[in-house]
Amino acid sequence: MQILLTNDDGIYAPGIAALKHQIQNLGQVTVVAPAIEQSGVGHSITFSQPLRIREVHLNNELIGYGVSGSPADCVKLAVYEIMKKEPDVVISGLNMGANVGIHILYSGTVAAAVEAAIMGFPSIAVSFEITEQYADVNDASKVAKKVIECIIKHKLPKGSLLNVNIPSRPANQIKGIKITRQFAHDFKETFDKRTDPSGRAYYWLMGTDKSIHREDGTDITAVNEGYISVTPLRYDLTDQDLYKKIEGWDWDI
Amino acid sequence: MQILLTNDDGIYAPGIAALKHQIQNLGQVTVVAPAIEQSGVGHSITFSQPLRIREVHLNNELIGYGVSGSPADCVKLAVYEIMKKEPDVVISGLNMGANVGIHILYSGTVAAAVEAAIMGFPSIAVSFEITEQYADVNDASKVAKKVIECIIKHKLPKGSLLNVNIPSRPANQIKGIKITRQFAHDFKETFDKRTDPSGRAYYWLMGTDKSIHREDGTDITAVNEGYISVTPLRYDLTDQDLYKKIEGWDWDI
Repeated sequence: MQILLTNDDGIYAPGIAALKHQIQNLGQVTVVAPAIEQSGVGHSITFSQPLRIREVHLNNELIGYGVSGSPADCVKLAVYEIMKKEPDVVISGLNMGANVGIHILYSGTVAAAVEAAIMGFPSIAVSFEITEQYADVNDASKVAKKVIECIIKHKLPKGSLLNVNIPSRPANQIKGIKITRQFAHDFKETFDKRTDPSGRAYYWLMGTDKSIHREDGTDITAVNEGYISVTPLRYDLTDQDLYKKIEGWDWDI
Repeated sequence: MQILLTNDDGIYAPGIAALKHQIQNLGQVTVVAPAIEQSGVGHSITFSQPLRIREVHLNNELIGYGVSGSPADCVKLAVYEIMKKEPDVVISGLNMGANVGIHILYSGTVAAAVEAAIMGFPSIAVSFEITEQYADVNDASKVAKKVIECIIKHKLPKGSLLNVNIPSRPANQIKGIKITRQFAHDFKETFDKRTDPSGRAYYWLMGTDKSIHREDGTDITAVNEGYISVTPLRYDLTDQDLYKKIEGWDWDI
Protein backbone atom coordinates (compact mmCIF):
# COMPACT_ATOMS: atom_id res chain seq x y z
CA MET A 1 0.00 0.00 0.00
CA GLN A 2 1.29 3.46 -0.97
CA ILE A 3 0.78 6.02 1.81
CA LEU A 4 1.41 9.74 1.36
CA LEU A 5 2.03 11.43 4.71
CA THR A 6 1.95 15.22 5.03
CA ASN A 7 1.14 17.89 7.62
CA ASP A 8 1.07 21.64 8.20
CA ASP A 9 3.46 21.87 11.17
CA GLY A 10 6.39 21.21 8.84
CA ILE A 11 8.57 18.22 8.04
CA TYR A 12 10.62 18.58 11.24
CA ALA A 13 7.59 18.60 13.57
CA PRO A 14 7.43 15.89 16.25
CA GLY A 15 3.87 14.96 15.25
CA ILE A 16 4.67 13.77 11.73
CA ALA A 17 7.76 11.87 12.92
CA ALA A 18 5.78 10.09 15.62
CA LEU A 19 2.96 9.19 13.23
CA LYS A 20 5.39 8.00 10.54
CA HIS A 21 7.04 5.73 13.11
CA GLN A 22 3.67 4.19 13.96
CA ILE A 23 2.32 3.66 10.45
CA GLN A 24 5.51 2.65 8.64
CA ASN A 25 4.58 -1.04 8.72
CA LEU A 26 1.16 -0.38 7.10
CA GLY A 27 2.76 0.21 3.71
CA GLN A 28 5.29 2.29 1.78
CA VAL A 29 5.18 5.72 3.48
CA THR A 30 6.33 8.78 1.49
CA VAL A 31 6.63 11.98 3.54
CA VAL A 32 6.10 15.24 1.64
CA ALA A 33 5.59 18.16 3.98
CA PRO A 34 6.17 21.91 4.19
CA ALA A 35 9.82 22.86 4.77
CA ILE A 36 8.65 25.34 7.42
CA GLU A 37 5.55 25.53 9.62
CA GLN A 38 2.34 26.44 7.78
CA SER A 39 -0.28 26.40 10.54
CA GLY A 40 -3.39 28.41 9.78
CA VAL A 41 -2.68 28.73 6.08
CA GLY A 42 -5.98 27.07 5.20
CA HIS A 43 -6.33 25.85 1.64
CA SER A 44 -3.74 28.24 0.25
CA ILE A 45 -1.87 27.30 -2.92
CA THR A 46 1.24 28.82 -4.44
CA PHE A 47 1.09 30.11 -8.01
CA SER A 48 2.74 33.55 -7.82
CA GLN A 49 6.14 32.04 -7.12
CA PRO A 50 7.75 28.72 -7.97
CA LEU A 51 8.08 25.83 -5.53
CA ARG A 52 11.18 23.94 -4.45
CA ILE A 53 11.46 20.34 -3.31
CA ARG A 54 14.33 19.37 -1.02
CA GLU A 55 15.25 15.88 0.14
CA VAL A 56 15.42 15.80 3.93
CA HIS A 57 17.86 13.43 5.59
CA LEU A 58 18.28 12.41 9.21
CA ASN A 59 21.23 10.23 10.27
CA ASN A 60 22.11 9.68 6.60
CA GLU A 61 18.62 8.36 5.88
CA LEU A 62 16.08 9.99 3.56
CA ILE A 63 13.10 10.79 5.77
CA GLY A 64 11.06 12.74 3.23
CA TYR A 65 10.71 15.77 0.99
CA GLY A 66 10.42 19.35 2.23
CA VAL A 67 8.40 21.71 0.04
CA SER A 68 8.67 25.51 0.08
CA GLY A 69 4.89 25.87 0.06
CA SER A 70 1.58 25.03 1.67
CA PRO A 71 0.20 21.62 2.67
CA ALA A 72 -2.03 21.64 -0.44
CA ASP A 73 1.05 22.34 -2.59
CA CYS A 74 2.73 19.33 -0.94
CA VAL A 75 -0.07 16.99 -1.98
CA LYS A 76 -0.07 18.21 -5.57
CA LEU A 77 3.73 17.98 -5.87
CA ALA A 78 3.83 14.58 -4.18
CA VAL A 79 1.37 13.09 -6.63
CA TYR A 80 2.53 14.82 -9.81
CA GLU A 81 6.30 15.01 -9.24
CA ILE A 82 7.59 12.91 -6.34
CA MET A 83 5.75 9.58 -5.90
CA LYS A 84 6.34 6.93 -8.53
CA LYS A 85 2.98 5.28 -7.78
CA GLU A 86 -0.26 7.01 -6.84
CA PRO A 87 -1.09 6.93 -3.14
CA ASP A 88 -3.73 4.47 -1.94
CA VAL A 89 -4.39 6.76 1.00
CA VAL A 90 -3.25 10.25 1.99
CA ILE A 91 -2.75 10.99 5.69
CA SER A 92 -2.23 14.51 7.06
CA GLY A 93 -0.89 14.78 10.60
CA LEU A 94 -0.35 14.19 13.38
CA ASN A 95 -1.27 17.83 13.89
CA MET A 96 -0.13 19.44 17.13
CA GLY A 97 -3.52 20.82 18.19
CA ALA A 98 -7.15 19.95 17.53
CA ASN A 99 -8.85 20.88 14.25
CA VAL A 100 -12.50 21.09 15.13
CA GLY A 101 -15.41 23.42 14.36
CA ILE A 102 -14.68 26.48 12.30
CA HIS A 103 -10.95 25.90 12.71
CA ILE A 104 -11.32 23.16 10.09
CA LEU A 105 -11.54 25.97 7.54
CA TYR A 106 -8.30 27.59 8.70
CA SER A 107 -6.37 24.35 8.99
CA GLY A 108 -3.56 23.47 6.61
CA THR A 109 -3.72 19.89 7.94
CA VAL A 110 -7.32 19.52 6.82
CA ALA A 111 -6.66 21.42 3.55
CA ALA A 112 -4.02 18.84 2.57
CA ALA A 113 -6.57 16.07 3.08
CA VAL A 114 -9.21 18.06 1.15
CA GLU A 115 -6.75 18.52 -1.73
CA ALA A 116 -6.11 14.76 -1.76
CA ALA A 117 -9.84 14.04 -1.75
CA ILE A 118 -10.37 16.43 -4.68
CA MET A 119 -7.65 14.53 -6.55
CA GLY A 120 -9.63 11.35 -5.95
CA PHE A 121 -7.71 9.71 -3.11
CA PRO A 122 -9.18 8.54 0.19
CA SER A 123 -7.74 10.87 2.80
CA ILE A 124 -7.53 11.27 6.55
CA ALA A 125 -6.60 14.34 8.58
CA VAL A 126 -5.45 13.45 12.10
CA SER A 127 -5.04 16.03 14.85
CA PHE A 128 -4.18 15.76 18.53
CA GLU A 129 -5.62 18.13 21.10
CA ILE A 130 -2.45 19.19 22.87
CA THR A 131 -2.96 20.78 26.30
CA GLU A 132 -0.74 21.73 29.20
CA GLN A 133 -2.06 18.64 30.97
CA TYR A 134 -1.24 16.14 28.24
CA ALA A 135 0.91 16.37 25.13
CA ASP A 136 2.39 12.91 24.44
CA VAL A 137 2.53 12.76 20.63
CA ASN A 138 3.94 9.24 20.66
CA ASP A 139 1.03 7.91 22.67
CA ALA A 140 -1.43 9.88 20.51
CA SER A 141 0.20 8.51 17.36
CA LYS A 142 -0.38 4.96 18.58
CA VAL A 143 -4.06 5.83 18.95
CA ALA A 144 -4.02 7.48 15.53
CA LYS A 145 -2.57 4.32 14.00
CA LYS A 146 -5.44 2.21 15.34
CA VAL A 147 -8.00 4.62 13.90
CA ILE A 148 -6.19 4.70 10.55
CA GLU A 149 -6.01 0.88 10.44
CA CYS A 150 -9.74 0.70 11.15
CA ILE A 151 -10.50 3.17 8.32
CA ILE A 152 -8.23 1.32 5.86
CA LYS A 153 -9.85 -2.01 6.80
CA HIS A 154 -13.28 -0.60 5.89
CA LYS A 155 -12.01 0.77 2.55
CA LEU A 156 -12.76 4.50 2.60
CA PRO A 157 -14.26 5.31 -0.83
CA LYS A 158 -12.18 7.26 -3.37
CA GLY A 159 -12.35 11.01 -2.82
CA SER A 160 -13.65 10.61 0.73
CA LEU A 161 -12.24 12.56 3.58
CA LEU A 162 -12.34 11.96 7.33
CA ASN A 163 -11.25 14.50 9.95
CA VAL A 164 -10.00 12.68 13.06
CA ASN A 165 -9.31 14.42 16.38
CA ILE A 166 -7.72 12.69 19.36
CA PRO A 167 -8.49 14.08 22.81
CA SER A 168 -5.81 15.27 25.20
CA ARG A 169 -5.54 12.28 27.48
CA PRO A 170 -3.63 8.98 27.73
CA ALA A 171 -4.83 6.19 25.42
CA ASN A 172 -6.26 4.15 28.28
CA GLN A 173 -8.46 7.07 29.36
CA ILE A 174 -9.99 7.68 25.92
CA LYS A 175 -13.68 6.76 26.06
CA GLY A 176 -14.03 5.52 22.47
CA ILE A 177 -14.87 6.87 19.02
CA LYS A 178 -17.77 9.12 18.04
CA ILE A 179 -18.84 9.89 14.48
CA THR A 180 -19.59 13.61 14.59
CA ARG A 181 -20.60 16.63 12.57
CA GLN A 182 -18.63 19.88 12.40
CA PHE A 183 -19.48 22.45 15.11
CA ALA A 184 -20.49 25.18 12.65
CA HIS A 185 -20.62 28.33 14.78
CA ASP A 186 -18.36 31.31 15.30
CA PHE A 187 -15.72 30.92 18.03
CA LYS A 188 -15.80 34.72 18.43
CA GLU A 189 -12.06 35.13 18.36
CA THR A 190 -11.10 38.76 18.87
CA PHE A 191 -7.88 40.76 19.05
CA ASP A 192 -5.49 41.93 21.71
CA LYS A 193 -4.53 45.49 20.76
CA ARG A 194 -1.02 46.46 21.85
CA THR A 195 1.36 49.35 21.26
CA ASP A 196 4.89 48.82 19.94
CA PRO A 197 7.97 50.72 21.20
CA SER A 198 7.40 53.29 18.42
CA GLY A 199 3.89 54.00 19.69
CA ARG A 200 2.12 52.25 16.82
CA ALA A 201 -0.77 49.81 17.34
CA TYR A 202 -0.61 46.12 16.47
CA TYR A 203 -3.13 43.34 16.91
CA TRP A 204 -2.77 39.73 18.03
CA LEU A 205 -5.54 37.30 17.21
CA MET A 206 -6.64 35.71 20.47
CA GLY A 207 -7.69 32.07 20.51
CA THR A 208 -10.89 31.08 22.19
CA ASP A 209 -11.27 28.59 25.01
CA LYS A 210 -12.83 25.91 22.84
CA SER A 211 -13.98 23.89 25.85
CA ILE A 212 -16.76 26.42 26.49
CA HIS A 213 -18.47 25.49 23.22
CA ARG A 214 -20.90 22.60 23.49
CA GLU A 215 -23.39 21.05 21.10
CA ASP A 216 -24.28 17.38 21.16
CA GLY A 217 -23.14 15.38 18.17
CA THR A 218 -20.36 17.78 17.18
CA ASP A 219 -16.60 17.28 16.87
CA ILE A 220 -15.77 19.77 19.60
CA THR A 221 -18.06 18.19 22.18
CA ALA A 222 -16.82 14.67 21.46
CA VAL A 223 -13.19 15.76 22.00
CA ASN A 224 -14.10 17.79 25.09
CA GLU A 225 -15.75 14.70 26.56
CA GLY A 226 -12.73 12.47 25.91
CA TYR A 227 -13.79 10.70 22.72
CA ILE A 228 -11.94 10.40 19.43
CA SER A 229 -13.97 12.45 16.94
CA VAL A 230 -14.34 11.25 13.34
CA THR A 231 -16.07 13.78 11.06
CA PRO A 232 -16.71 13.02 7.37
CA LEU A 233 -16.10 16.18 5.33
CA ARG A 234 -16.93 17.28 1.80
CA TYR A 235 -15.46 19.85 -0.54
CA ASP A 236 -18.62 20.63 -2.51
CA LEU A 237 -19.63 23.80 -0.66
CA THR A 238 -22.99 24.24 -2.41
CA ASP A 239 -25.71 25.11 0.10
CA GLN A 240 -28.73 23.16 -1.19
CA ASP A 241 -31.20 24.74 1.25
CA LEU A 242 -30.20 28.28 0.32
CA TYR A 243 -30.23 27.20 -3.33
CA LYS A 244 -33.95 26.36 -3.13
CA LYS A 245 -34.67 29.61 -1.33
CA ILE A 246 -32.94 31.96 -3.78
CA GLU A 247 -34.16 30.03 -6.82
CA GLY A 248 -37.56 31.61 -6.16
CA TRP A 249 -36.24 35.18 -6.08
CA ASP A 250 -36.92 37.59 -8.92
CA TRP A 251 -33.47 37.69 -10.55
CA ASP A 252 -34.48 39.87 -13.49
CA ILE A 253 -31.79 42.55 -13.44
CA MET B 1 -26.93 50.54 5.48
CA GLN B 2 -23.41 49.61 6.62
CA ILE B 3 -21.39 47.84 3.93
CA LEU B 4 -18.00 46.25 4.54
CA LEU B 5 -16.05 45.91 1.30
CA THR B 6 -12.95 43.72 1.09
CA ASN B 7 -11.03 41.61 -1.46
CA ASP B 8 -7.94 39.48 -1.91
CA ASP B 9 -6.23 41.41 -4.71
CA GLY B 10 -5.26 44.12 -2.21
CA ILE B 11 -6.54 47.58 -1.38
CA TYR B 12 -4.89 49.18 -4.43
CA ALA B 13 -6.43 46.74 -6.94
CA PRO B 14 -8.60 48.21 -9.73
CA GLY B 15 -11.44 45.79 -9.00
CA ILE B 16 -12.17 46.99 -5.47
CA ALA B 17 -11.94 50.65 -6.52
CA ALA B 18 -14.37 50.11 -9.40
CA LEU B 19 -16.84 48.21 -7.22
CA LYS B 20 -16.63 50.80 -4.44
CA HIS B 21 -17.41 53.53 -6.96
CA GLN B 22 -20.51 51.64 -8.09
CA ILE B 23 -21.93 50.72 -4.68
CA GLN B 24 -21.09 53.86 -2.70
CA ASN B 25 -24.65 55.16 -2.97
CA LEU B 26 -26.13 51.95 -1.55
CA GLY B 27 -24.96 52.82 1.98
CA GLN B 28 -21.94 53.65 4.11
CA VAL B 29 -19.06 51.71 2.54
CA THR B 30 -16.01 50.84 4.68
CA VAL B 31 -13.08 49.36 2.77
CA VAL B 32 -10.81 47.01 4.75
CA ALA B 33 -8.53 45.02 2.46
CA PRO B 34 -5.10 43.39 2.42
CA ALA B 35 -2.23 45.87 2.11
CA ILE B 36 -0.67 43.59 -0.50
CA GLU B 37 -2.13 41.02 -2.90
CA GLN B 38 -3.30 37.79 -1.25
CA SER B 39 -4.62 35.74 -4.16
CA GLY B 40 -4.75 32.01 -3.53
CA VAL B 41 -4.33 32.30 0.22
CA GLY B 42 -7.60 30.48 0.83
CA HIS B 43 -9.04 30.77 4.31
CA SER B 44 -5.71 31.51 5.95
CA ILE B 45 -5.63 33.47 9.18
CA THR B 46 -2.73 35.14 10.96
CA PHE B 47 -1.98 34.15 14.54
CA SER B 48 1.79 33.56 14.60
CA GLN B 49 2.51 37.24 14.07
CA PRO B 50 0.63 40.43 14.89
CA LEU B 51 -1.41 42.41 12.39
CA ARG B 52 -1.17 46.08 11.44
CA ILE B 53 -3.89 48.39 10.20
CA ARG B 54 -2.93 51.38 8.07
CA GLU B 55 -5.22 54.15 6.85
CA VAL B 56 -4.96 54.45 3.08
CA HIS B 57 -5.43 57.88 1.51
CA LEU B 58 -5.82 58.90 -2.10
CA ASN B 59 -5.91 62.62 -3.05
CA ASN B 60 -6.09 63.53 0.66
CA GLU B 61 -9.18 61.37 1.10
CA LEU B 62 -9.40 58.27 3.30
CA ILE B 63 -10.27 55.43 0.93
CA GLY B 64 -9.97 52.57 3.40
CA TYR B 65 -7.82 50.50 5.70
CA GLY B 66 -4.95 48.29 4.58
CA VAL B 67 -4.28 45.21 6.71
CA SER B 68 -0.98 43.28 6.81
CA GLY B 69 -2.82 39.96 6.61
CA SER B 70 -5.27 37.76 4.75
CA PRO B 71 -8.81 38.57 3.54
CA ALA B 72 -10.24 36.61 6.49
CA ASP B 73 -8.06 38.69 8.86
CA CYS B 74 -9.49 41.83 7.24
CA VAL B 75 -13.07 40.82 8.00
CA LYS B 76 -12.28 40.00 11.63
CA LEU B 77 -10.36 43.25 12.16
CA ALA B 78 -13.00 45.31 10.37
CA VAL B 79 -15.78 44.05 12.60
CA TYR B 80 -13.88 43.92 15.91
CA GLU B 81 -11.58 46.95 15.59
CA ILE B 82 -12.40 49.29 12.71
CA MET B 83 -16.14 49.67 12.05
CA LYS B 84 -18.17 51.56 14.62
CA LYS B 85 -21.37 49.75 13.61
CA GLU B 86 -21.70 46.12 12.51
CA PRO B 87 -22.02 45.61 8.76
CA ASP B 88 -25.45 44.87 7.31
CA VAL B 89 -23.75 43.13 4.43
CA VAL B 90 -20.16 42.13 3.62
CA ILE B 91 -19.03 42.24 -0.01
CA SER B 92 -15.76 40.74 -1.24
CA GLY B 93 -14.57 41.80 -4.67
CA LEU B 94 -14.54 42.68 -7.42
CA ASN B 95 -12.05 39.86 -7.87
CA MET B 96 -9.87 40.01 -10.96
CA GLY B 97 -10.57 36.48 -12.19
CA ALA B 98 -13.38 33.96 -11.81
CA ASN B 99 -13.77 31.92 -8.61
CA VAL B 100 -15.59 28.81 -9.70
CA GLY B 101 -15.35 25.09 -9.04
CA ILE B 102 -12.53 23.88 -6.83
CA HIS B 103 -10.91 27.32 -7.04
CA ILE B 104 -13.53 28.47 -4.54
CA LEU B 105 -11.50 26.61 -1.90
CA TYR B 106 -8.26 28.41 -2.81
CA SER B 107 -9.85 31.84 -3.07
CA GLY B 108 -9.14 34.56 -0.56
CA THR B 109 -12.10 36.49 -2.02
CA VAL B 110 -14.50 33.70 -1.14
CA ALA B 111 -12.77 33.06 2.22
CA ALA B 112 -13.47 36.66 3.28
CA ALA B 113 -17.15 36.14 2.51
CA VAL B 114 -17.11 32.78 4.34
CA GLU B 115 -15.54 34.45 7.38
CA ALA B 116 -18.28 37.10 7.33
CA ALA B 117 -20.98 34.43 7.07
CA ILE B 118 -19.49 32.54 10.03
CA MET B 119 -19.63 35.79 12.01
CA GLY B 120 -23.34 35.99 11.17
CA PHE B 121 -23.45 38.59 8.40
CA PRO B 122 -25.02 38.16 4.97
CA SER B 123 -22.13 38.10 2.55
CA ILE B 124 -21.45 38.18 -1.17
CA ALA B 125 -18.25 37.26 -3.02
CA VAL B 126 -18.12 38.83 -6.50
CA SER B 127 -15.59 37.82 -9.12
CA PHE B 128 -15.10 38.80 -12.74
CA GLU B 129 -13.78 36.34 -15.33
CA ILE B 130 -11.00 38.42 -16.85
CA THR B 131 -9.76 37.24 -20.24
CA GLU B 132 -7.54 38.62 -22.96
CA GLN B 133 -10.71 39.33 -24.91
CA TYR B 134 -12.49 41.32 -22.22
CA ALA B 135 -11.29 42.86 -18.97
CA ASP B 136 -13.37 46.02 -18.31
CA VAL B 137 -13.65 46.10 -14.51
CA ASN B 138 -15.76 49.25 -14.57
CA ASP B 139 -18.38 47.67 -16.80
CA ALA B 140 -18.27 44.44 -14.75
CA SER B 141 -18.68 46.47 -11.54
CA LYS B 142 -21.87 48.02 -12.94
CA VAL B 143 -23.20 44.52 -13.50
CA ALA B 144 -22.03 43.50 -10.02
CA LYS B 145 -23.91 46.44 -8.50
CA LYS B 146 -27.18 45.30 -10.11
CA VAL B 147 -26.73 41.78 -8.75
CA ILE B 148 -25.85 43.12 -5.28
CA GLU B 149 -28.91 45.42 -5.31
CA CYS B 150 -31.11 42.48 -6.25
CA ILE B 151 -29.67 40.38 -3.40
CA ILE B 152 -30.07 43.20 -0.86
CA LYS B 153 -33.67 43.76 -2.01
CA HIS B 154 -34.51 40.14 -1.27
CA LYS B 155 -32.87 40.29 2.18
CA LEU B 156 -30.21 37.57 2.21
CA PRO B 157 -30.61 35.76 5.57
CA LYS B 158 -27.97 36.27 8.30
CA GLY B 159 -24.96 34.05 7.87
CA SER B 160 -25.79 33.32 4.23
CA LEU B 161 -23.21 33.46 1.54
CA LEU B 162 -23.52 33.84 -2.23
CA ASN B 163 -20.66 33.39 -4.68
CA VAL B 164 -21.25 35.55 -7.77
CA ASN B 165 -19.22 35.25 -10.97
CA ILE B 166 -19.55 37.63 -13.90
CA PRO B 167 -18.61 36.33 -17.36
CA SER B 168 -15.98 37.95 -19.52
CA ARG B 169 -18.17 39.95 -21.88
CA PRO B 170 -19.79 43.38 -22.11
CA ALA B 171 -22.90 43.90 -19.97
CA ASN B 172 -25.21 43.97 -22.99
CA GLN B 173 -23.98 40.54 -24.11
CA ILE B 174 -24.55 38.81 -20.76
CA LYS B 175 -27.39 36.31 -21.17
CA GLY B 176 -28.83 36.60 -17.64
CA ILE B 177 -28.41 35.01 -14.22
CA LYS B 178 -28.23 31.32 -13.34
CA ILE B 179 -28.43 29.88 -9.85
CA THR B 180 -25.78 27.18 -9.86
CA ARG B 181 -23.97 24.56 -7.81
CA GLN B 182 -20.20 24.36 -7.41
CA PHE B 183 -18.39 22.29 -10.07
CA ALA B 184 -16.85 19.85 -7.60
CA HIS B 185 -14.20 18.03 -9.62
CA ASP B 186 -10.44 18.22 -9.88
CA PHE B 187 -9.10 20.70 -12.48
CA LYS B 188 -5.98 18.50 -12.74
CA GLU B 189 -3.54 21.36 -12.42
CA THR B 190 0.01 20.13 -12.76
CA PHE B 191 3.49 21.67 -12.65
CA ASP B 192 5.96 23.07 -15.12
CA LYS B 193 9.38 21.83 -13.97
CA ARG B 194 12.24 24.20 -14.80
CA THR B 195 15.91 24.51 -13.96
CA ASP B 196 17.37 27.67 -12.43
CA PRO B 197 20.76 29.17 -13.44
CA SER B 198 22.36 27.17 -10.58
CA GLY B 199 21.06 23.91 -12.06
CA ARG B 200 18.44 23.32 -9.36
CA ALA B 201 14.85 22.36 -10.17
CA TYR B 202 11.84 24.54 -9.42
CA TYR B 203 8.15 24.04 -10.13
CA TRP B 204 5.45 26.43 -11.35
CA LEU B 205 1.84 25.50 -10.78
CA MET B 206 0.11 25.59 -14.17
CA GLY B 207 -3.47 26.77 -14.40
CA THR B 208 -5.99 24.75 -16.31
CA ASP B 209 -8.10 25.94 -19.22
CA LYS B 210 -11.31 26.09 -17.26
CA SER B 211 -13.44 26.38 -20.39
CA ILE B 212 -12.88 22.68 -21.13
CA HIS B 213 -14.82 21.68 -18.00
CA ARG B 214 -18.55 21.32 -18.52
CA GLU B 215 -21.36 20.05 -16.33
CA ASP B 216 -24.90 21.40 -16.59
CA GLY B 217 -26.08 23.38 -13.60
CA THR B 218 -22.59 24.27 -12.37
CA ASP B 219 -20.92 27.64 -11.82
CA ILE B 220 -18.24 27.00 -14.42
CA THR B 221 -20.66 26.10 -17.19
CA ALA B 222 -22.91 29.09 -16.49
CA VAL B 223 -19.95 31.48 -16.78
CA ASN B 224 -18.59 29.69 -19.86
CA GLU B 225 -21.98 30.12 -21.54
CA GLY B 226 -22.15 33.84 -20.76
CA TYR B 227 -24.40 33.87 -17.71
CA ILE B 228 -23.81 35.46 -14.32
CA SER B 229 -23.43 32.54 -11.91
CA VAL B 230 -24.84 32.80 -8.37
CA THR B 231 -23.87 29.87 -6.12
CA PRO B 232 -25.09 29.64 -2.51
CA LEU B 233 -22.28 28.29 -0.33
CA ARG B 234 -22.06 26.88 3.19
CA TYR B 235 -19.25 26.57 5.71
CA ASP B 236 -20.51 23.45 7.48
CA LEU B 237 -18.34 20.90 5.69
CA THR B 238 -19.97 17.82 7.24
CA ASP B 239 -20.65 15.17 4.59
CA GLN B 240 -24.02 13.73 5.61
CA ASP B 241 -23.96 10.88 3.08
CA LEU B 242 -20.55 9.69 4.17
CA TYR B 243 -21.68 10.14 7.79
CA LYS B 244 -24.45 7.57 7.33
CA LYS B 245 -22.05 5.20 5.60
CA ILE B 246 -19.30 5.22 8.22
CA GLU B 247 -21.75 5.19 11.12
CA GLY B 248 -22.33 1.53 10.30
CA TRP B 249 -18.63 0.62 10.41
CA ASP B 250 -17.21 -1.41 13.28
CA TRP B 251 -15.29 1.32 15.12
CA ASP B 252 -14.24 -0.82 18.06
CA ILE B 253 -10.52 -0.14 18.28
